[in-house]
Amino acid sequence: MVKERSVLQFPIVKVDEHGHLTALDALAIEEPLEIRLAFGSKQNRTVKNISVTMRTPGNDAELATGFLFTEGIISHRDDLSSVNHCFIACAENKENVIQVELNETFIPQLQHTDRNFYTTSSCGVCGKGSIAAIKTVSSFHPNSKDDCSISQELLLELPGRLRQHQAVFDATGGLHACALFLPNGELLLLREDVGRHNALDKLIGAALEKDWLPLNKTVLLLSGRASFELIQKAAMAGIAIIAAVGAPSSLAVELALEFGITLIGFLRQQRFNIYTNEHRVLMAHYEDKN
Amino acid sequence: MVKERSVLQFPIVKVDEHGHLTALDALAIEEPLEIRLAFGSKQNRTVKNISVTMRTPGNDAELATGFLFTEGIISHRDDLSSVNHCFIACAENKENVIQVELNETFIPQLQHTDRNFYTTSSCGVCGKGSIAAIKTVSSFHPNSKDDCSISQELLLELPGRLRQHQAVFDATGGLHACALFLPNGELLLLREDVGRHNALDKLIGAALEKDWLPLNKTVLLLSGRASFELIQKAAMAGIAIIAAVGAPSSLAVELALEFGITLIGFLRQQRFNIYTNEHRVLMAHYEDKN
Repeated sequence: MVKERSVLQFPIVKVDEHGHLTALDALAIEEPLEIRLAFGSKQNRTVKNISVTMRTPGNDAELATGFLFTEGIISHRDDLSSVNHCFIACAENKENVIQVELNETFIPQLQHTDRNFYTTSSCGVCGKGSIAAIKTVSSFHPNSKDDCSISQELLLELPGRLRQHQAVFDATGGLHACALFLPNGELLLLREDVGRHNALDKLIGAALEKDWLPLNKTVLLLSGRASFELIQKAAMAGIAIIAAVGAPSSLAVELALEFGITLIGFLRQQRFNIYTNEHRVLMAHYEDKN
Repeated sequence: MVKERSVLQFPIVKVDEHGHLTALDALAIEEPLEIRLAFGSKQNRTVKNISVTMRTPGNDAELATGFLFTEGIISHRDDLSSVNHCFIACAENKENVIQVELNETFIPQLQHTDRNFYTTSSCGVCGKGSIAAIKTVSSFHPNSKDDCSISQELLLELPGRLRQHQAVFDATGGLHACALFLPNGELLLLREDVGRHNALDKLIGAALEKDWLPLNKTVLLLSGRASFELIQKAAMAGIAIIAAVGAPSSLAVELALEFGITLIGFLRQQRFNIYTNEHRVLMAHYEDKN
């Protein structure tokens, strides 16, 4: 096995209608990452294991800070003092633990580190309760008038631009991607991972580091389906327009409605569906051909 | 909004090169499910919240028992006494909490309920450690000789058979599916969900209920990509052959190797790749046309 940063070359048997042959195939690397949080004063410093996620190595610091932000544990890059890999005794010496040091004066919202914080609402467990819980935690007000719109033509070009820039996808076919665009179609950021939630955490962590939040003047493109979890993360970052190549779920649509987000699905083959807030999509003008 | 069991009809704007129109679209329903575990003697009964997952309603009891089994918390259907929805005050009166009652004499392996039990190995956090931890927990021995094989021709037919039977996918385009086949191509079980791990937990929970485990004489088909988490669940159920329509990750391949599982990827358009243990695939005989 020859490992690069995000790809592993592995010998396989390829089978088609003409026969079979052995060949090397590129696999997307999946490895666990443990995220640790260190907080408190110098005299009384605490280190807590916050999460273990299966991810594709690369941009681990962004993944950690993006995760902490979208889970509502931190709210600004100034809350952070440093983010570094820990080197722990392991036969393979992998960089699979990352420690986020918070400023001594910052008190993290650790009640949110319970599994799925958004279900701890008064309602108990239902979609409405989950949405209400996110509203409590999010720093950015939904339904802001100060955001952006995009033309139908540019929107249709975004998946092609994503593929042009996607570094690993073509080699493995196994990675999810997400990308942030300006409304004029310019690509700002692109991140990839075996886990779609990790790709988005990396992207939001990068934006946090660049002090770009809220992202209310950008368009987020998702290479796959739009689940509640992804819309939740985008809502935390204040994103106004989300376009997915795949289908959205019911709760993704309900959350987008509640937060005033424009949600577009099935963006492929020169067509798309607008699920919520279509006013941010500037439709092309068509001559009546009848 | 009109809700059926797994599908929600929602008004959207459809846009294509000819213009746009409003229409109803079918969305895959996503709602949280809280899984609670009740255990201990009558005198000293404990109820513990084990997990909250976003899932498509339907087959919730299978999802709960499949999850408990694949996480190594229970190992046989005899460990269970009953599985029922709890009705908790909620404005929408949804069936979003399920309680699994264990037999009084059975002591669940609750050290495994920490998030991602497979990372608690001695190695710390790395892929090898994750695989070693699963070996400790799994009841079924890997590399058993007593399993099955499938012909190339039948394998190529499985995705078509899955689609024929898929109840919700065609309507929403938003659900993952997994299916269990006999080596003669007969469909045994099919489950769908917005979460691919939930679809597989439902399928394994159904097999547990039917007392079919280990599933070493069946073929598992996954409608999407093969991640470590899915191979881990399949390995817990003793499945010998796994075929995915999408790509596998590096750690999925390593786990399949370690457990002696045959892993097939990119099963579509009359071709496929065999990543591990190709001896279980009976290749067609081709005339040499040179």
